[in-house]
Parts: sequence; structure tokens; C-alpha cells
Amino acid sequence: MRTFAVVGHLAPTGDGFTLDDLPGAAGRMDILCRCVNAALSISHGIRRDAEIHLILLGPPSPPKDLLIQGSAVRSLSPDERSTAALLRKALALPTGDTFRESSPGILVRRGGLAGLVAEGGYAVLSKDGRDMRTLTDLPGGVLLSDHLDFTAVEEELLAGLPRISVGPRVLQADQAITVLQNELDRREAGWI
Amino acid sequence: MRTFAVVGHLAPTGDGFTLDDLPGAAGRMDILCRCVNAALSISHGIRRDAEIHLILLGPPSPPKDLLIQGSAVRSLSPDERSTAALLRKALALPTGDTFRESSPGILVRRGGLAGLVAEGGYAVLSKDGRDMRTLTDLPGGVLLSDHLDFTAVEEELLAGLPRISVGPRVLQADQAITVLQNELDRREAGWI
Repeated sequence: MRTFAVVGHLAPTGDGFTLDDLPGAAGRMDILCRCVNAALSISHGIRRDAEIHLILLGPPSPPKDLLIQGSAVRSLSPDERSTAALLRKALALPTGDTFRESSPGILVRRGGLAGLVAEGGYAVLSKDGRDMRTLTDLPGGVLLSDHLDFTAVEEELLAGLPRISVGPRVLQADQAITVLQNELDRREAGWI
Repeated sequence: MRTFAVVGHLAPTGDGFTLDDLPGAAGRMDILCRCVNAALSISHGIRRDAEIHLILLGPPSPPKDLLIQGSAVRSLSPDERSTAALLRKALALPTGDTFRESSPGILVRRGGLAGLVAEGGYAVLSKDGRDMRTLTDLPGGVLLSDHLDFTAVEEELLAGLPRISVGPRVLQADQAITVLQNELDRREAGWI
């Protein structure tokens, strides 16, 4: 299983946002939608062996952990607006400490970065990390941030985790996921 | 200069499309917007050394060649809707055989794939191509298609061009551009 987790520092935790302004009023939900696409979609298909957590920290009731599972998700289109509509539906659900399914493969729970880190297996995607191509084993899970840096409190949670880098330029979150997926594809197919 | 060119087989050649349905009514304009982002945007910045042609073949007046130049473009946001709005503005301009600027770094002309291929320097991104990582020199320009395969007529135009592949899985057009940009970044920075 390939697991990704992205922290959306401003992303809404309720369904009261408009699909017409994902970057602004919806707290950069556009970034998170692109990350879902990078993690789960390929040409004319879904990566059934991948999943992505979106850790949402914006108003009105943070933190929430939205989980989209490639193994089960249906009607996932690659465009931002359709994906945002699907996520918004999940954010309308009342949340507890365990995951609750909104539609097939889309689940939501109350929970933030600390809980996810405690589950183990993550590395942090970072410009200061070790080049992914030089690593013998790639991590099963990768954590990254949206357009904002991790806060000091978050960095403390992540302090013990390995750090990996996808390349010399600092990419957008979804671009970094795409590059990492390609490296994983290559290793799986023996293209290295 | 890194040049990309994407053929949008259904993409509108006029400004009469809605931003609320880029995948449907707007002929998969969402794909082209993501390609612009992959070609030109990085985290908090624009790739000034890159440009992308969008070859639009949908109604009402195909073909059109939209050129977005990283060296000059301003107010380019990574989200699909903002990018589509910017492109739509350019599609309102009357077009001739030479490029006309709609806003800084966004130009439009009447013209299709044949003209672009005639300008030279392109390779075709294809699942049957040679693995980019094995090539000593990467091409200066790369041509690819949207969600549809190249037509038989287009394949004839492309017959003499080299073909390269970015990996073992067939990716979405923008994902392929992102992976290729990473390879180019690595070579430029001596990370290989």
C-alpha cells in the first residue's frame, strides 16, 4: 500500500464552502484536490494500491482526517471541482474518533497529525531530505504540507521521522506526490 | 528553454465556455489547465525557462495555438479555474497566422499540430517510447496528447519524431510533464 498524507493548514472542516473559489474562500482546497489526483489517478484509471489522508485544519471544527482509498473509491474525476464536491459531501458528516464512510472509499474522522504520526510508517517529504533515488527502500507512507511550511508544533511531532526529497527544485505538493509515484512505479516494474 | 505542447482534441477555440464545467462542456479544458501548471509552476514560483503550447481543436474555430510563456506570464495561479479564466480571455481575441498577446506571456494564433511540428525540435511523449532516464540528451520540446490518443492523421505528422516515455505506468498528461520536469531539474542540478 502507498500512503500519502497532506496537511491543509487552512482547509475547511465543514461543508460550507463554495466550489467557485477553492484557492481563496475554501482555504486552498485546490491543492488538496490536486494531491488526491496525484496520489490516486493515472490515465483512465485509479491506483487501487494507494490511499491519501487529508489533514484539514481550517474552520469550523478542526482537526479532521479525510481518507480517500483507491481500493474502494468510485466516481473520482481528476478535476479539482469534482473532487472538491466529493470531499465536501464527506465534510457534512458528523465525526467521531473512528472513520465513517461518506461514499465508497471516502472516510472522515476527527483527528490530526499527531494521531497519524502515531500510527507509524511515515517519512516526511522535504527539500532537505535524502534524495529518493539514492534510497534502497522507500517508505510506505509519506507526509507533506500544503503551500505553507509545517508549523513549529508540527515539526516537533515530525522530528523523529526520516526525510526524503524528490529533487532539487521545491515542487508543489501534488507535483512531489506525482514524482514519488513515478519512482515507486519504476521500482515495482523493475525499470531502475 | 523547455517547451511542451499538448493537443486538446475537444478543447474550445472560443471564449463561450463556462468555468463551472471544465471537464464536460469545456471539452476537458481541466486537463490543459493542469498541464499549464505542471509546465510552468513550482512551489511559490514560475519556471521562467519553460513554455507550453496548447493546440485546441474543439469548436467553434479550430485549430488554435495558445502559447503560455513562463518568462513573461503574470498572475498565473495553479488552480484550474483561474488558469481557465486566463486562457478564455485569450480565446476572445481575433486570431491570425502570427501570435497576438492577450495578457503578458499569453499569446494566441490560428494554427495546429502541423505548424508546430514543422518548427522542429520535438519528441513525442508515449508509453512506447524510450525511457527518459536512459537517454543521454533529452529533447528541447515534448509533444503529448490529452485524454485521447493522437488520431491517425496526427500520428502521420509525428511519424518521424523520437518517442520518449517517463515510466512504466501511463500517466495523465500533466503528470507526465511533472515527471519530465523533475528529470530535467535533476540533470540541470547535477543530481543524476
